[in-house]
Amino acid sequence: MYNFSFHNPTRILFGQGEIARIGECIPAQARILITYGGGSVVRFGVLDEVKAALGERFCLEFGGIEPNPSYETLMPAVELIRRNNIDFLLAVGGGSVIDGTKFLAAAACWIGSDPWDILLDGGATVQKALPFGAVLTLPATGSEMNCGAVISRNVTRVALPAANGANAGVSLITKSQHDKLVFSSPLVYPQFSVLDPTKSYTLPAQQTANGIVDAFVHILEQYLTFPVDAKVQDRFAEGLLLTLLEEGPRVLADPQNYDARANLMWAATMALNGLIGCGVPQDWATHMLGHEITALHGLDHAQTLAVVMPSLMQAQRDVKRQKLLQYAERIWDLHDRDDDKRIDLAISRTRDFFESLGINTRLADYGIGSEALDALVAKLDQHGRYPLGERQDITLERSRTILAAAI
Amino acid sequence: MYNFSFHNPTRILFGQGEIARIGECIPAQARILITYGGGSVVRFGVLDEVKAALGERFCLEFGGIEPNPSYETLMPAVELIRRNNIDFLLAVGGGSVIDGTKFLAAAACWIGSDPWDILLDGGATVQKALPFGAVLTLPATGSEMNCGAVISRNVTRVALPAANGANAGVSLITKSQHDKLVFSSPLVYPQFSVLDPTKSYTLPAQQTANGIVDAFVHILEQYLTFPVDAKVQDRFAEGLLLTLLEEGPRVLADPQNYDARANLMWAATMALNGLIGCGVPQDWATHMLGHEITALHGLDHAQTLAVVMPSLMQAQRDVKRQKLLQYAERIWDLHDRDDDKRIDLAISRTRDFFESLGINTRLADYGIGSEALDALVAKLDQHGRYPLGERQDITLERSRTILAAAI
Repeated sequence: MYNFSFHNPTRILFGQGEIARIGECIPAQARILITYGGGSVVRFGVLDEVKAALGERFCLEFGGIEPNPSYETLMPAVELIRRNNIDFLLAVGGGSVIDGTKFLAAAACWIGSDPWDILLDGGATVQKALPFGAVLTLPATGSEMNCGAVISRNVTRVALPAANGANAGVSLITKSQHDKLVFSSPLVYPQFSVLDPTKSYTLPAQQTANGIVDAFVHILEQYLTFPVDAKVQDRFAEGLLLTLLEEGPRVLADPQNYDARANLMWAATMALNGLIGCGVPQDWATHMLGHEITALHGLDHAQTLAVVMPSLMQAQRDVKRQKLLQYAERIWDLHDRDDDKRIDLAISRTRDFFESLGINTRLADYGIGSEALDALVAKLDQHGRYPLGERQDITLERSRTILAAAI
Repeated sequence: MYNFSFHNPTRILFGQGEIARIGECIPAQARILITYGGGSVVRFGVLDEVKAALGERFCLEFGGIEPNPSYETLMPAVELIRRNNIDFLLAVGGGSVIDGTKFLAAAACWIGSDPWDILLDGGATVQKALPFGAVLTLPATGSEMNCGAVISRNVTRVALPAANGANAGVSLITKSQHDKLVFSSPLVYPQFSVLDPTKSYTLPAQQTANGIVDAFVHILEQYLTFPVDAKVQDRFAEGLLLTLLEEGPRVLADPQNYDARANLMWAATMALNGLIGCGVPQDWATHMLGHEITALHGLDHAQTLAVVMPSLMQAQRDVKRQKLLQYAERIWDLHDRDDDKRIDLAISRTRDFFESLGINTRLADYGIGSEALDALVAKLDQHGRYPLGERQDITLERSRTILAAAI
């Protein structure tokens, strides 16, 4: 096991009705900006519940934070915060709203000329951030209990034609997000997060499925590398994977099953709060490749992960051999005598699981063909964090191979 | 799953050499009291390493905190802290030293007449505590990452004769600790804890074994109750149990195996840092009964757990039936068709595991016979937290039954 530091100060309030307790977590004199997304939290009454819990505190609202939250959308909120002396943020929504709010928390205190610089150095120079809390409505990213965020920048907004005429109707491919970058800082842990499983009852099946895939791949990024004899971390990761395998289909079949929603929500949080990544190698190449697909083609984050991960598992099967065998045995209960057959089966079971949730696992399913590879690889090159992978052996060339095999 | 709050602010620095980093975690102007136990940290150089890391800071030392740390031992340190304006404590040792230091942290700020009152109300009235950190040398109690402590009070100190003449030579039974009580407060989380597995290399096998049993039973207290469909918590608990089953024998056979020591240390910490207990019923009757055995007969804490747990599993097998079956299958890989046979085997395997570590599991092994029952039950009655257990069905009478069956 590698040496590690672990410190996660976020307070979790878990369960139905816990929104009522957020007043205990925010100073009485706080000047609050509530942030949210497309408006489902308004329609389903979550926002009213939050405001009731805040009592007489000064509150402004900023809605419209989109999936893959963008610098362009968020910068007006930075102005709003500064103009109104806001000193506490409250994100109500999913990972995008929380990520966007982390950016706001840091950007509002940023003394440089352009807060986009926060993304360019990955958060290393963040010196100060506003305190904030979160009310989670979509289990997926783990942002509610970690200190990372992903922010996009749309240099131009144009409607891109789908690459494949047969799929031109895919409505997701409507804009060009040219950069999708990550930052993290210990200053942007939420002070608290409310996880009320009932608030996820009304999610569209597609979003629920995306969340399951997102959490599943977060775990694999930290688990499916090479063994360092870290038994607790392995067992915890496996426990979360098994939970998602059980609860994913259960939630989709029975969206108002409290316990299934609760298990999914807690598993997604634990999947990326730092715990299972303590002292072990991590990969994250699937995310890096996936981010460029979203940036250039607008796929949902989880769709990109479902596309890249099986292809990457195949391409990296030698490097990941020992952990793939462990994964095959402990997660998929595979006991065939032939090692390579077990690995083949584990990869195909993974793909089948994503497909069973309704998430396609081929680029072609989204209308993306080989003509897209050059631009994707050029973007990867531009963002210059090469080579990728736990062994740092995923070169640009291998990235192209992985993407090509994902078509 | 039940609603829950989870908040664990302790920073963990894990791995060989991490003691060098404690200077980063303590204010430069701090006036520090280093606390430790019987002197092994002096003999093996840990204290020197700690002092080197503290640099020029003002430091006093207070050694001699015993296993089952006592009010009588600790109160002079409270005086020392007040007289020297100590404002930071640093525990160097195992769970007893850390527990004792938690008491000091709260007692030094206590404005009532007698800090023993902290124990009498379980910590509920603690308003303030000194900040402190810990350097762990003995994986066992989890105290390094939680906010609880167990403190004893020796109303009289007398050498008790062993109850059974055949075992009169058992040296542990040398004093009468008349009260052993628990307190907890969110104000006594360590600010940081250093977990360096190499610092546990020199532990006597008996203490290592005690730690394994202690952690194992901590997990069972939170896991072996009744199901509430909390899949993540179950899987995490099972992952820790499996890790202890694997690493316990490995550590005893090869005390300087870094990875085995590291896995044991991390598992013991995770066993009682609040995580696996989130949103699930908890038992703790084994601990309550065990504390009285230590208080009256001086057994090691882990010895009492190894004695009581198998007996309690048997007595509570109907109440715990579903989880016992899950435990039998997932931990002991038992698949016999007969449910009761699987439960019988799971209980006997648990007992065998403790015995295999060198920890006896019968009161008679420690020279305690049926003549001890009246006094034990009277003490349980006096401490008045009845009935016990996750179903609150362990009455005084049933406690006697459990203790009698443990002889």
